[in-house]
Amino acid sequence: MSHDAAALESFVKRYLDTVAGGSAAAVAALYTDDATLEDPVGSGEVHIGRQAIEGFYKNLAGAGADLTTELLQFRPGGHEAAFLFAINVGSAMRIEPIEVMTFDADGQITSMKAYWSPADVKQL
Amino acid sequence: MSHDAAALESFVKRYLDTVAGGSAAAVAALYTDDATLEDPVGSGEVHIGRQAIEGFYKNLAGAGADLTTELLQFRPGGHEAAFLFAINVGSAMRIEPIEVMTFDADGQITSMKAYWSPADVKQL
Repeated sequence: MSHDAAALESFVKRYLDTVAGGSAAAVAALYTDDATLEDPVGSGEVHIGRQAIEGFYKNLAGAGADLTTELLQFRPGGHEAAFLFAINVGSAMRIEPIEVMTFDADGQITSMKAYWSPADVKQL
Repeated sequence: MSHDAAALESFVKRYLDTVAGGSAAAVAALYTDDATLEDPVGSGEVHIGRQAIEGFYKNLAGAGADLTTELLQFRPGGHEAAFLFAINVGSAMRIEPIEVMTFDADGQITSMKAYWSPADVKQL
């Protein structure tokens, strides 16, 4: 189940690239069938399963704005990773969450938790 | 169980201050009796309970070097928090982990996971 740091970073970069350039279905395809997603942590809402996860990313993309992402800090941990990144929504808004992901043996995401609050959203 | 962002940040700052200036027993006292600690994540070793956790921090302090800590990035999440920080070991070494903590209703730490690898250790 454990991956080396370079492999984990490649999974995270593929995720960020897909969030920026791909469809909600393409992002959801990076998750396992029974994966869980909590974004933001503390919202009390956990999305369970790939279909629910695709719905979550559809809402994200709903604004139709261009999304760009930047990996700012990356930390590996066995079959997990924690990372700080920026997501820019067009030229209007920048959010910098810390996310924690777990991966299965094939590098698919088994869980994602995103830590951020309104204080981490900047209007540009 | 949920705490506001300011309360969560105060718990994290108290932890970092205690790691820098306090004894292993003082750090362990910030944890609940049955808390868990995994540092680094992926090591395959989880310390369970306050006594094991005190042992972990005793080993940390074992070098006898001055420790200083700096909170670099903080993200709240209900009864959890994720944060990037630096720990300086004397003037010899600097490590920048991302940690994730969960807290009980009283602000005591119920779990801690530290994400970092040798690549995140700088010899100064």
